[in-house]
Amino acid sequence: MREETKEKLKMIPLGGLGLIGMNMTAFQYKDSIVVVDCGLAFPEDDMLGIDLVIPDVTFLKDNIDMVKGIVFTHGHEDHIGAVPYVIKDLPVALYATKLTMGLMERKLEEHDLLKSTKRKVVKPGQIITLGDFRIEFIKTNHSIQDAVALAIYSPAGTVVHTGDFKVDYTPVFGDAIDLQRFAEIGKKGVLALLCDSTNAERPGFTASERTVGRTFDNIFAEHKNTRLIIATFASNVDRVQQIINSACKYGRKVVVEGRSMVNVITTAQELGYLRIPENTLIDLETMKNYTDEQICLITTGSQGESMAALSRMASSMHKKVTIGPGDTVIFSSNPIPGNEKAVSKVINELTQKGAEVIFQDAHVSGHACQEEIKLIYTLVRPKYAVPVHGEYRHLTAQAKIAASLGIEPDNIFLLKAGEVLEMDEEGAAITGQVPVGSILVDGLGVGDVGNIVLRDRQHLAEDGIVIAVMALEKYSNQVLSGPDIVSRGFVYVREAEDLMEEAQEVAEDAVYNCLDHHVADWAKIKNSMRDALGEFFWKRTKRKPMILPIIMEVE
Amino acid sequence: MREETKEKLKMIPLGGLGLIGMNMTAFQYKDSIVVVDCGLAFPEDDMLGIDLVIPDVTFLKDNIDMVKGIVFTHGHEDHIGAVPYVIKDLPVALYATKLTMGLMERKLEEHDLLKSTKRKVVKPGQIITLGDFRIEFIKTNHSIQDAVALAIYSPAGTVVHTGDFKVDYTPVFGDAIDLQRFAEIGKKGVLALLCDSTNAERPGFTASERTVGRTFDNIFAEHKNTRLIIATFASNVDRVQQIINSACKYGRKVVVEGRSMVNVITTAQELGYLRIPENTLIDLETMKNYTDEQICLITTGSQGESMAALSRMASSMHKKVTIGPGDTVIFSSNPIPGNEKAVSKVINELTQKGAEVIFQDAHVSGHACQEEIKLIYTLVRPKYAVPVHGEYRHLTAQAKIAASLGIEPDNIFLLKAGEVLEMDEEGAAITGQVPVGSILVDGLGVGDVGNIVLRDRQHLAEDGIVIAVMALEKYSNQVLSGPDIVSRGFVYVREAEDLMEEAQEVAEDAVYNCLDHHVADWAKIKNSMRDALGEFFWKRTKRKPMILPIIMEVE
Repeated sequence: MREETKEKLKMIPLGGLGLIGMNMTAFQYKDSIVVVDCGLAFPEDDMLGIDLVIPDVTFLKDNIDMVKGIVFTHGHEDHIGAVPYVIKDLPVALYATKLTMGLMERKLEEHDLLKSTKRKVVKPGQIITLGDFRIEFIKTNHSIQDAVALAIYSPAGTVVHTGDFKVDYTPVFGDAIDLQRFAEIGKKGVLALLCDSTNAERPGFTASERTVGRTFDNIFAEHKNTRLIIATFASNVDRVQQIINSACKYGRKVVVEGRSMVNVITTAQELGYLRIPENTLIDLETMKNYTDEQICLITTGSQGESMAALSRMASSMHKKVTIGPGDTVIFSSNPIPGNEKAVSKVINELTQKGAEVIFQDAHVSGHACQEEIKLIYTLVRPKYAVPVHGEYRHLTAQAKIAASLGIEPDNIFLLKAGEVLEMDEEGAAITGQVPVGSILVDGLGVGDVGNIVLRDRQHLAEDGIVIAVMALEKYSNQVLSGPDIVSRGFVYVREAEDLMEEAQEVAEDAVYNCLDHHVADWAKIKNSMRDALGEFFWKRTKRKPMILPIIMEVE
Repeated sequence: MREETKEKLKMIPLGGLGLIGMNMTAFQYKDSIVVVDCGLAFPEDDMLGIDLVIPDVTFLKDNIDMVKGIVFTHGHEDHIGAVPYVIKDLPVALYATKLTMGLMERKLEEHDLLKSTKRKVVKPGQIITLGDFRIEFIKTNHSIQDAVALAIYSPAGTVVHTGDFKVDYTPVFGDAIDLQRFAEIGKKGVLALLCDSTNAERPGFTASERTVGRTFDNIFAEHKNTRLIIATFASNVDRVQQIINSACKYGRKVVVEGRSMVNVITTAQELGYLRIPENTLIDLETMKNYTDEQICLITTGSQGESMAALSRMASSMHKKVTIGPGDTVIFSSNPIPGNEKAVSKVINELTQKGAEVIFQDAHVSGHACQEEIKLIYTLVRPKYAVPVHGEYRHLTAQAKIAASLGIEPDNIFLLKAGEVLEMDEEGAAITGQVPVGSILVDGLGVGDVGNIVLRDRQHLAEDGIVIAVMALEKYSNQVLSGPDIVSRGFVYVREAEDLMEEAQEVAEDAVYNCLDHHVADWAKIKNSMRDALGEFFWKRTKRKPMILPIIMEVE
């Protein structure tokens, strides 16, 4: 360690705090910046038409010379999903474990960025040097394989970042979380622990992924005469492995359906994270050559996503799978908050087609509950606690746990995105603020939809639009045509002819009233039409459509 | 009983089956029709801009001479809410218990329909005659007082309709459900049982409302130094009573906030369903004269409804209540499916302001769980089982319970709205179909928003609108002005000037291409503009805004 002029370590979350998703955190020591994760968020309900949301990385762009690389904790969308969108402006190297990198490479390839992006695969246990930092990757467990925690060593001290994790003593694939290493690092002294808060409100321990395997075995044993259709998260390779294990045990062929499921299984199998015995996997096309009892279909759509395979099967929109009384459908998942109604809709549709639906007990969480969080705190014994990953209520719940374990309340920091936490052995404090924000992605547009466009979409969604259009002679202001009224999403025009005719008269009155009073300013004429129509429609319908007056200029 | 020519009894659900809400069922024997309940449904997520949904009552209007009246089971919106919208077309008498009628009268008054509507208050235990029917009102328990089940006696046999119910042996106000009467009626022979399915997937018993009172006492005892803010359903008068009881016990004044809460409390107090000791209730205005420890505030907003009082407090939009570290906020409710995210948002905002939030254990359901459903079946011993009140998955769950109790699978009917179930001692079968549907209410418009308008709103919400407008000389088809491009909700125009200029050229090319080829049909010119712009925008943005070409005719 250099003894010259020690500085403090800065932690700067660019997303992921106070909301689920968009995880991205910068660590700065002097001229070195290391970034952890680069995730996306899914749009909130009021972000109409938005496909996904990515963090604003202005701070990193402004300091691009200092950025030494991005390290990743695991391959979920909320940790890797923003990479293809920000990497063009942030041409730095990516460091990730094998499966995480494999999933990221698929994305980069889709965006034609694979060749231009520097990548390095790392292994749990490995340490890399990035500027003034050394980063150690520590094996953890999560609902996707190859998840790691990070020990971030800096001259000002060590930070341990758990990433998303759970403690699974009996994982399906590979090793249990490396608790010994957490203890060792803790013993040497840790400045801050950044720990996953997702389940911090839940008491107890999260059950092992292996318990789900036993549930599958039971379900397979009890349903020998129906086709089994199992929906789960595409990225949960261990879950898929356990379904395949049960299918083999009970002599069923496995069919995989749903684009993301096929993608992940292909990647996982190529990289050796999934072992499928020969003659197990069959094509959807050849399913018709087998009886129901011989088939286990693994599919996407466990969250009720309207375009996913299971939803299309449930609503008879799937071309190749027809649901009937010979089917047992298992949701190997819990609805993510906000998806409850969509999931329920799919369950109702499946039930109505005669299928039996099992939606309990075939899932465990991938996140640590309260006792696991306590375990990690007790092994790491940090000076400062910085709860990460979760909504504010979850961060608060972890703060309570940290306090109950003896961490000084003044040493617990509930950060918001953009806040700069400076720390060393002497103390820690929020000392500044960098620009942060949510960039909306809609189709090919990144950031071209902002508050104004969203407000317009919300307005249009609520009450539709009424357009009042007319042609005016340029110099004389003589009305050459119109005003005509056109509407969309407002009323069913065929049954509201009277209303629209009256509206036309209202617009006309407004225009001639202006012209009679020699108002030549077209903006004023437009405003006058807008006001008159707005008032008229509110009085008659108690609705407020967007009113758009247009004047065509004719010379 | 007349022995001449016995006919079968018809049951015709007009809503409420296969979805939550819009409960309304007709029973017909010869020329007599009796209707049970007349509820609304809240709009689904894709019903943009819709305020509420009511059942299509065409069948009743077409047979108005036979309709003898509407009887009500209890005063929740999904059982009484459609009354003001359908009563104009169905001028029949309403029969309900006192509180149910009181709540209904408030609605009728708001719609200026009170004087013109025939109403009769009934009591549990009472029997009324409506045409060939006799209807008996039987005391039950639910999350609103004065709930009743119905025994519907007809010459073809007796139907028992539970309404929404639970079994509460120790209710807060009034008597427990009249299980003896269920048994007596069952002993005499019951054709069909129509039983609440809401909680049919849940094992066990629903706890007594009184248990929540004990939880409140504990919370009050443990939080003597903070202001207590309790959010619950306005209509749950017993819940409000228990909060008031705890407040009195612990020497706190009670403030009531939120329009529907104030309304229900006023009605319930007037009718004697709520006992508030003197000097307990204080005005929101005078709250400032008291310290935090002296106040208990009862409020609406337990479902995270954005305009409700608690949500406004949480987002600093409430003018008179400021949330801070001196507050403990209790959600005495569970989120209704679909409201989870909204509730979570409010919890996050409250937590962020420093308030402690309690959102577990201060609520019990108002609906019967599996063991209670079994109890009612065992007392009533019906020949036919017709599960009601619930989504299809819930109806199916009750069907399984009925089968487990020995009801013949052929005698269990999972009806859909509109299906006519004919039954007597000899047998039962679905024999027909009446017109049914969902009528959307938007502002003052009842039924003027249908699928076309909704589809337009969804399209507008997704990608906005682009208007291409031009003026053409009527005879020569000479372009006098335009085409101009105007957009809303599509892109932020100030930063997309190039795109919009190119679009203008695309529209122009499309128009002149038509005119050069002597296409004189304006519909074709418009289509050509629409296609060209659609293709252009998709290529450039991967978005599909609504494209609306308008041609102004100038003579």
